[in-house]
Amino acid sequence: MVFHGPGQSAWEDVPDPAVKEPTDAIVRVDSVTICGTDLHILKGDVPEVRPGTVLGHECVGEIVEVGSDVRTVRPGDRVLVSCITACGRCRYCREGMYGQCRGGGGWILGHLIDGTQAEYVRVPYADLSVYPLPGTVSSKDAVLLADIFPTSYEVGVLNGKVRPGDTVAVVGAGPIGLAAIATARLFAPERIIAIDLAPARLEAARRFGADAVADVHEAPRQLVTDLTDGLGADVVIEAVGVPDTFELCTRLVRPGGHVANVGVHGKPATLHLEDLWIKNVTITTGLVDTYSTPTLLRMAAAGRLPTEQMVTHTFPLERMEEAYDVFGRASETGALKVVLGGEQHDQLAVRTD
Amino acid sequence: MVFHGPGQSAWEDVPDPAVKEPTDAIVRVDSVTICGTDLHILKGDVPEVRPGTVLGHECVGEIVEVGSDVRTVRPGDRVLVSCITACGRCRYCREGMYGQCRGGGGWILGHLIDGTQAEYVRVPYADLSVYPLPGTVSSKDAVLLADIFPTSYEVGVLNGKVRPGDTVAVVGAGPIGLAAIATARLFAPERIIAIDLAPARLEAARRFGADAVADVHEAPRQLVTDLTDGLGADVVIEAVGVPDTFELCTRLVRPGGHVANVGVHGKPATLHLEDLWIKNVTITTGLVDTYSTPTLLRMAAAGRLPTEQMVTHTFPLERMEEAYDVFGRASETGALKVVLGGEQHDQLAVRTD
Repeated sequence: MVFHGPGQSAWEDVPDPAVKEPTDAIVRVDSVTICGTDLHILKGDVPEVRPGTVLGHECVGEIVEVGSDVRTVRPGDRVLVSCITACGRCRYCREGMYGQCRGGGGWILGHLIDGTQAEYVRVPYADLSVYPLPGTVSSKDAVLLADIFPTSYEVGVLNGKVRPGDTVAVVGAGPIGLAAIATARLFAPERIIAIDLAPARLEAARRFGADAVADVHEAPRQLVTDLTDGLGADVVIEAVGVPDTFELCTRLVRPGGHVANVGVHGKPATLHLEDLWIKNVTITTGLVDTYSTPTLLRMAAAGRLPTEQMVTHTFPLERMEEAYDVFGRASETGALKVVLGGEQHDQLAVRTD
Repeated sequence: MVFHGPGQSAWEDVPDPAVKEPTDAIVRVDSVTICGTDLHILKGDVPEVRPGTVLGHECVGEIVEVGSDVRTVRPGDRVLVSCITACGRCRYCREGMYGQCRGGGGWILGHLIDGTQAEYVRVPYADLSVYPLPGTVSSKDAVLLADIFPTSYEVGVLNGKVRPGDTVAVVGAGPIGLAAIATARLFAPERIIAIDLAPARLEAARRFGADAVADVHEAPRQLVTDLTDGLGADVVIEAVGVPDTFELCTRLVRPGGHVANVGVHGKPATLHLEDLWIKNVTITTGLVDTYSTPTLLRMAAAGRLPTEQMVTHTFPLERMEEAYDVFGRASETGALKVVLGGEQHDQLAVRTD
């Protein structure tokens, strides 16, 4: 799926990738998904993506070739390809901030180099960038752990420091917001309030664990105020990526609370410091680091993550353009996550059990 | 010193305060100072202050009367009156966030009730809001621990999470910025870079411990970039309170770094989320909680804080209007902190040793 500039992309023939560095692996893609970030790229919000780049930064597949320095995986291994690639050696990697890798990693797949929405993908620094999969986790479930679950968990729930007894407001109930709701529940908050403009997404939010929901146009601030004795939410998670929703988050948070921005933004927002300077508020931004991926894989294997509820549409790999269309018109189609491929490898996984 | 609306204040006769609640103390003011926040009030940035309010939220004095519930101080005690009053019982006080007290405390002196720029002041919740002073700390030094040192330390250095080896940029080298420089040094940063527009303040910054200084109009970003291998500062402390300096701070910080806002803002700022969403940046705001005041008092007694360098002008109490003028024209007068009063009580302190 090749990006050809804002608004333009196509499923077309490109040369197969080959090992370029001794730390590379080549993965045959079995399951792949489309991320809200891919839509931001197509909108032109991520100008670093050059025309000609294969999109996609999430997949599950089988290792078909490794460079001479790869130690932890080998051909035939079924792996999760993470959205974040990590050199493991730079200052940021040493502090577990793989998303900010200065050694040539970070978010590069489908961004700075060719990505996963293809039949084969070259993954640099394979030892630190792919995760062998337990056979008990299906490809369709596992692919959700390449980006959205670790993103929602690390950048939303952990950066927001959700604690037992908290009131958590999640603004935006798309896949990222829903995964934030599901993983916020792990910390036993008193309540989770989901805010969106689509009734179908608010219903989905309830299924994922929201205790209350509000239409963004119908006084969500009043609801949060009423439910918190006038105080505001302890943690507010921004899962949209537009100025209005970010500003709403800073209005919903209580003094001493946290606003965790997860959304990908293309424009600046207004920060109302004339109100906020006195409020002991913490605002965090972030690209996922994926340090939580092994933990989340264990939890998925144990059935503790609602990955199945997230996938609303599946397609064969070659129907990528149709899948983009369905995902891009989510408000009409009701799409949460669309997954492409998947069958071939799940059959292999069963056969080798 | 009575506030009469934006731009208007006067040193005039008002009735002496009396104990109203059993938790009150009445303090005879010996040393008092003027805060940048008082200037913000006079500019109209803090609209909650009603005309008729006595200004000031920092002083050292002697307890002359206490209510029936006050247990930890008694008449004759020499005390520091903190800018923050704390009920000690509400949710915020129990978490050490006294600045956000919901029980009638917080920053109330010279804000919501009459303050310290007077001969006598009523201090609510005296047990948790005044600190008995060691005889070895002069009133002139101690009064700087009522607000600026804990503010710079807690809201700047501790919220910013300064660590050994860090590059710390401090934007604004007025008293708050200088106290931030002095207390950031306690964490052994690799370097502190001070940024201001007044050459005299940049010189002061060097005296307080800055390793490098930059004029705000002469490419401070380039200096920070050059000194940090292109990465940016680990911690940036905003100590001015205008949109431009806040926005500069968000440009100076490295991926994964902290921006700690200390400035009092009257206007919103632009938050460049289109750059920041991906950078793992943490932005904090805050009113001081003064949980560090006992620690800072011990450090002042041990000579570990450069309080003496901070006071550039002293006045008798009744020359308050002149002191405001000198402090308000700091760029011409070179004023850092002005202290009023002081002699009477220091003599008493010596006499009782």
